[in-house]
Amino acid sequence: MKVSQRGQVPPFEVMQIVEEVAHLRAAGHDVISLCVGEPGGGAPTAVNQLAAQLHEQGADFGYTATAGLAQTREALASHYFRSYGVQIPARNFVMTTGSSGAFQLAFLAAFDAGDKVALARPGYPAYANILGALGLDVIDLPTGPEQRFQPTVEILERAYAEHGGLDGLVIASPNNPTGTMFSAQELEALSDWCEEHQVRLISDEIYHGIEFVSERRGHTSWEFSRNSIVVSSFSKYWGMTGWRLGWMIVPDDLVTTVDALASNLALCAPAPAQCAVVAAFEPASIAEAQRRVADFAATRDLVLGNFDKFGIEEAAPADGAFYLYGRLGPKILDRFGSASAFCRAVLEAVHVALTPGGDFDPFEGQHFIRLSFAAGYDRVAEALERVDGFISQSLQPEH
Amino acid sequence: MKVSQRGQVPPFEVMQIVEEVAHLRAAGHDVISLCVGEPGGGAPTAVNQLAAQLHEQGADFGYTATAGLAQTREALASHYFRSYGVQIPARNFVMTTGSSGAFQLAFLAAFDAGDKVALARPGYPAYANILGALGLDVIDLPTGPEQRFQPTVEILERAYAEHGGLDGLVIASPNNPTGTMFSAQELEALSDWCEEHQVRLISDEIYHGIEFVSERRGHTSWEFSRNSIVVSSFSKYWGMTGWRLGWMIVPDDLVTTVDALASNLALCAPAPAQCAVVAAFEPASIAEAQRRVADFAATRDLVLGNFDKFGIEEAAPADGAFYLYGRLGPKILDRFGSASAFCRAVLEAVHVALTPGGDFDPFEGQHFIRLSFAAGYDRVAEALERVDGFISQSLQPEH
Repeated sequence: MKVSQRGQVPPFEVMQIVEEVAHLRAAGHDVISLCVGEPGGGAPTAVNQLAAQLHEQGADFGYTATAGLAQTREALASHYFRSYGVQIPARNFVMTTGSSGAFQLAFLAAFDAGDKVALARPGYPAYANILGALGLDVIDLPTGPEQRFQPTVEILERAYAEHGGLDGLVIASPNNPTGTMFSAQELEALSDWCEEHQVRLISDEIYHGIEFVSERRGHTSWEFSRNSIVVSSFSKYWGMTGWRLGWMIVPDDLVTTVDALASNLALCAPAPAQCAVVAAFEPASIAEAQRRVADFAATRDLVLGNFDKFGIEEAAPADGAFYLYGRLGPKILDRFGSASAFCRAVLEAVHVALTPGGDFDPFEGQHFIRLSFAAGYDRVAEALERVDGFISQSLQPEH
Repeated sequence: MKVSQRGQVPPFEVMQIVEEVAHLRAAGHDVISLCVGEPGGGAPTAVNQLAAQLHEQGADFGYTATAGLAQTREALASHYFRSYGVQIPARNFVMTTGSSGAFQLAFLAAFDAGDKVALARPGYPAYANILGALGLDVIDLPTGPEQRFQPTVEILERAYAEHGGLDGLVIASPNNPTGTMFSAQELEALSDWCEEHQVRLISDEIYHGIEFVSERRGHTSWEFSRNSIVVSSFSKYWGMTGWRLGWMIVPDDLVTTVDALASNLALCAPAPAQCAVVAAFEPASIAEAQRRVADFAATRDLVLGNFDKFGIEEAAPADGAFYLYGRLGPKILDRFGSASAFCRAVLEAVHVALTPGGDFDPFEGQHFIRLSFAAGYDRVAEALERVDGFISQSLQPEH
């Protein structure tokens, strides 16, 4: 029987590695995974406590309003005022099933099949895969260290001219896989350009709060453009990946459309999570999240000071998130041929899982690896020793 | 800035009524809502207890595997063996974000833009709206009381000939809004026809377990076709609408495609719910669900014995689910002009909210209303008195 063409999404290379990690662990090996994009430790204590209390009382979690519970959306509006100094009406917030649910709604509400949406490369592969499944044309914006791996007005001008216009642009700051962030000026310039050219800006801000460089503090695109769509989530900063609760900030001209789409495609975001996350904004919860950020910062310092021991010659700045993306040195590439082959060899020999860059960049990615320091300082320090030892041995003349 | 064409989903008429109910209640009126498609009472006690315990312990709910937790999928496989006598490998189960998440994955995995998917009318409006947003062509299958409001092989043959083939068929048993169910023979005949004609069958079984007629016990399409996609959820029988946890049974030829799509579109279904629902299959939980079904059954008897008091002349059989769908009598239609006008008048005069049929059937629906008996026996009994009184008064000669 027929299987769809549009469902033929390229498999993630990292999934093979994740499977291999599981096999090795099942066989009793001590594998350090620097693959994962999720922080350990779970939700803030107060969030879990509130959830426990509601379930204990047998709360009847029925459907919420399509856009979400009023108190949760109001709590988010207050959070934006406190964190960014911007006043955003609660009615522009829509609670979603993770940021994944938000991207679908954003893409369906803003674009029709055949519309052109630009994405920086390297980037999070799900953007292109969701856009493709929904019949949109992905416009590739190649970036490199000279642009700090982020799109610039210059790159956009070129793509706009080359493709006879653009309908949308997806950006992410902090970025996955590179960790790089826009400065306020850079984000403003992009926002202004999108406004001028009637290009719908979709700003992925899921790693906000996990930031290490004061002059590149996270800015929301709504500081600069109220025609942009913001996508974010409780997954990363608050450590709640499995809860599947995200949100979007929806421009006025899309509020009705997003609500109609969501009432058919989602009904509502998970209600227990919507109820419990109001506790995520309490001072104690923020303090817990900040302690995790401090741990990331220490691990980041370790990694940035020693990335050569992972075989990396040149690393992206890692302004935020918990990733280091770096180009492998020529000796490593000569010896192993590709980032995939290097990562396979490392995993097999010393049981450290790294992510080859191919998932994030189908063209240049085989020269890059991404490592996540969400695993924590001690594990990353040990991984560093193991990989360093492996590389020294592999590059000895007799090999 | 541009707003998509495909996002221009028709708004649900019922949403206006739901809003009006909220206004009336805010003004202090005692409104009985027979609009809602959700059972009251919440999840089984054991499910809430398990959730409470996990949250209390501060469980770290990270991403699960894309297809869901092994123990949850295995529990479902056992449930199908106990309930339907069919052995289905756990690997064919995919946990989804409600049945909504399952429909998107099913439609994207099985169909490309422009493919033709047939739907019975009247039917659940989100099917057509999701299909439309994903670029699929909806083929309308008008049904009436003579087919018990369900598609038949005859109707399919006709549609297949008229449209030069079909790619898919979505069915629902028990049906929303009519409550009608297929017999085993009817479901088998449809499944066979779909297999023969290479038409992908998608079977919405979300109301399974809420069944009132022994000779039309719920049958799963996987008893008859392992090329069909089953969509179901914990929302209705277990009373867990807001938890957003559903599942699909995926044919072998779609397993890889659904997994690839889900890993981009959803990542995973809500993890706390996946963990807690293993308790939904305990005998105590099933007993709680069955008590709710017994309540529905008593209310159904009341409604079926007195539907004329709601102005209904001819009612669909209501084999399962918690809906009665009926054609308004000629006097009512003469007096009010349409089901919408009648429902508005009833709500205004006696504060009972009914759903006009237009959402389920854009052509004939203005002659029909749907009422939900999820509100419970006493409330439905009172609603019946109120509407009966209103109708008697409205149809008096001096009016």
